[in-house]
Amino acid sequence: MAAALALSWRGRGRTAPNPNVGCVIVRDGRIVSRGWTQPGGRPHAEAMALARVDARGADVYVTLEPCAHASGRGPACADLLVEAAPGRVVVAAGDPDPRTDGAGIEKMRNAGIDVVENVLPGEARRAMAGFFARREKGRPHVTLKLATSLDGQVALPDGTSQWITGPEARAHAHLERALADMVVVGRGTAASDAPTLNVRLDGLGERTPGRAVLTSEYSNFAKLQLRADNPVWQHLASPEAIAGLADTDHVLVEGGAGAAAAFVAADLVDRLVLYRAPILMGSGLSALGDIALDRLDDAHGRWRLLESRTLGKDRLEVYERA
Amino acid sequence: MAAALALSWRGRGRTAPNPNVGCVIVRDGRIVSRGWTQPGGRPHAEAMALARVDARGADVYVTLEPCAHASGRGPACADLLVEAAPGRVVVAAGDPDPRTDGAGIEKMRNAGIDVVENVLPGEARRAMAGFFARREKGRPHVTLKLATSLDGQVALPDGTSQWITGPEARAHAHLERALADMVVVGRGTAASDAPTLNVRLDGLGERTPGRAVLTSEYSNFAKLQLRADNPVWQHLASPEAIAGLADTDHVLVEGGAGAAAAFVAADLVDRLVLYRAPILMGSGLSALGDIALDRLDDAHGRWRLLESRTLGKDRLEVYERA
Repeated sequence: MAAALALSWRGRGRTAPNPNVGCVIVRDGRIVSRGWTQPGGRPHAEAMALARVDARGADVYVTLEPCAHASGRGPACADLLVEAAPGRVVVAAGDPDPRTDGAGIEKMRNAGIDVVENVLPGEARRAMAGFFARREKGRPHVTLKLATSLDGQVALPDGTSQWITGPEARAHAHLERALADMVVVGRGTAASDAPTLNVRLDGLGERTPGRAVLTSEYSNFAKLQLRADNPVWQHLASPEAIAGLADTDHVLVEGGAGAAAAFVAADLVDRLVLYRAPILMGSGLSALGDIALDRLDDAHGRWRLLESRTLGKDRLEVYERA
Repeated sequence: MAAALALSWRGRGRTAPNPNVGCVIVRDGRIVSRGWTQPGGRPHAEAMALARVDARGADVYVTLEPCAHASGRGPACADLLVEAAPGRVVVAAGDPDPRTDGAGIEKMRNAGIDVVENVLPGEARRAMAGFFARREKGRPHVTLKLATSLDGQVALPDGTSQWITGPEARAHAHLERALADMVVVGRGTAASDAPTLNVRLDGLGERTPGRAVLTSEYSNFAKLQLRADNPVWQHLASPEAIAGLADTDHVLVEGGAGAAAAFVAADLVDRLVLYRAPILMGSGLSALGDIALDRLDDAHGRWRLLESRTLGKDRLEVYERA
């Protein structure tokens, strides 16, 4: 299942509104085929994996319950699996889509396939976080990225931020972009950093996500005009407007401090990715603007540390909603 | 040697201007006696350990080269060891005191004792950091403590900081106090938090260090009057004035942001102890005031991560001068 989950992450940011599923087929203890949801949502992971081998009697690991509903773009994966007749299907998480929601499992069991459920469901929900957020909250999953000094500054008083973190942390931040459908920034960042909001990693350049700019009054930065002839920007009147972004299940908020604070204040951040350089900066620009926090008690209990490690000379910490 | 180093830390903060040495005596692979420099500097670690057992033929581990010079307060440890006639003496770090500086080793070798040098010298220098800072830099070793949110804030805009970190991190901060000879704060913190600058840990209450207040213009806080009838405060006109503090080898700078920044700007911080709570605070008081940093390049290469772990719900990171 860990291998299937790794494949799931491959599709993240490119499959919305379809879930980024991963699938492996195992025979005699060896992986004989792999699949993951392809860009645009088709083929599905199971279809891709099944197309490559005869799965009769084999074990199939899939990160999401196979879909029970055929569409104009392809047959139902549960039907494909019944036809392929593996001996066992191991599923990480159920599909909350009302057209499936247990019906995929049932189809397979009715066909005599041994189905095992709930294997690493938490990891599956993390890998397909945007799909679940859409289903359960009616909005994309939101990651907030902050790159700071040890004392929490994101720029010198004159705005200089190149470079606080080192090349390894910056490469990781580009990978985070590649895993998002949409990058959101504030107006100041949109005006000053627009050309750099791409994915500068070998082989992943085509994965640059869409771009949206938060045009609300939350921005701490100067209200700079965006070039009207720039066709790629979507405009968000508020953080909540992300719910209306088409084909967007994973949003990455990149700053500045005003946009970051707006998403935090709206309680719309699901995951924090913190890069921290081993430097002290003193006075400068803090990572977050005002989030209208009146009592410290209200700040506690919201975040749980998921990952903590070294990236070059910097530290990476990932927190998720507690 | 690891056991001797642990004993060395026991004396830290209470032995200045004597080094906080640790010593264990091993026979047949078992520790048969232990010693550490006692409060005020005497007895020395070796004298304490040797007083308890017959060390003839045994192995002695000591974190600092045994002193070669007798004083009115006791005999030279090297002479005590020659008299005790262990088979081997293992030494972590040499004593830079010109009255010893190799002479202790030589005395023992001349007496036929097998002497092994340089076993965990870096750890020994960390444990007795104040002693080495005094000898090599003519000033105490300085630890700066910061307790912040994930976004680097130390208080809400109204000054509220109770509580950002949890009880485990606060207990650890009290342990840091117990390991210091002197706590230094800015004028604002001195005026508002003076009663709380003690060691509130069971069994360590008597280890509350001395207190000094930085009265220079660096403080970001209001220039509040200290009570003139408070006899315990020493006054520092500048961070550099710590060099003149008597019997002070280990200084802990506790804040506020102005005092912290003054020590960073003066390049007088040797060790950073960061407590970080899993909360976001947004606008508030940043951990550090202005440190006159003009270029980001100048901030890099100064700090090396030594320790990173969880304390309750918080993270502890310890950095040392690179």
